[in-house]
Amino acid sequence: MIRSAALLFRRNGVEGTAFSDVLERSGAPRGSIYHHFPGGKAELAEEATRYAGDFIAAALAAALAEDDPAATLRGFSAGLAGALGESGYADGCPVVAAALEGSRLPGARDAAGAAIERWEDLLAEAFEANRVPPVRARSLATLAIAAIEGAIVLARAQGSTAPIERVGDELERLSGEALVEARARPA
Amino acid sequence: MIRSAALLFRRNGVEGTAFSDVLERSGAPRGSIYHHFPGGKAELAEEATRYAGDFIAAALAAALAEDDPAATLRGFSAGLAGALGESGYADGCPVVAAALEGSRLPGARDAAGAAIERWEDLLAEAFEANRVPPVRARSLATLAIAAIEGAIVLARAQGSTAPIERVGDELERLSGEALVEARARPA
Repeated sequence: MIRSAALLFRRNGVEGTAFSDVLERSGAPRGSIYHHFPGGKAELAEEATRYAGDFIAAALAAALAEDDPAATLRGFSAGLAGALGESGYADGCPVVAAALEGSRLPGARDAAGAAIERWEDLLAEAFEANRVPPVRARSLATLAIAAIEGAIVLARAQGSTAPIERVGDELERLSGEALVEARARPA
Repeated sequence: MIRSAALLFRRNGVEGTAFSDVLERSGAPRGSIYHHFPGGKAELAEEATRYAGDFIAAALAAALAEDDPAATLRGFSAGLAGALGESGYADGCPVVAAALEGSRLPGARDAAGAAIERWEDLLAEAFEANRVPPVRARSLATLAIAAIEGAIVLARAQGSTAPIERVGDELERLSGEALVEARARPA
């Protein structure tokens, strides 16, 4: 049910997803939803956001363990562009969907904030491991996450992967330059 | 009614805004909405998105007439951070809200895509006027818009203006460098 909810939120938003849609997609029996989520939709939205945030954090950590941040951002952008095109530009990010819930579902919104902060930490640590100074590492990490999330929105609005490709180019260039500069700095 | 709809969409999303909310906020009589918008909520959402897109395009064009793109992006980021803080991190971008409507309200989504493309054109033209080559001008423009829209989402999720400030720093630095590089290029 949590996974089904995350998959529906990324396409239709939290407000645009009914409990009945989640039940239908997950195949869970009707009674089970209030048994597992006594807090109702607010609780399910919070759990689904946490699940999606962890899933993306694990993918990001795995990519950063293989590659430097510039190559990781390039790979992530390319992967997202492919997935978005395959979904007919229908599927966005479930964590962004939760972030927009504001005071309606503060638990889901706060879970989105925490997930994003964890992604920022992972990227900032990777920049720092490449000797980028901490303040710059943090601002590069925030820019990268904001730009990729924004690019997904642009791509969905325009029905084109071009915004993600252009953002991927700029992020790869900018991070690559930051890494070259950091390596040239005396230890 | 159009302006009221745009103001409600940016806080609650399109799906989260009912006709009755728009009527209440605008003070328009109940019968008037189907008189002015025979296409119902789909038509109102499309008009409100177009209105918001034009409003932001006019502000962007005015700022670019006064300043270079680097200073404009810095100014826009600072203005957004202030407005978002004042709204208690409640108000996002109505055009992003429409962009996420997908196949539910394709008219509003397409109006969002067109609005974003117009903002990209304005920024890209300003970079080109400063002798940045066209392909780079376009990718810088897309990055800036994606990053600012993404930063608004991050700020709302985290209840902090820090993401917008960090993104503003990076965009000002990156655009400033692109302008210096362009000016150093032989005419």
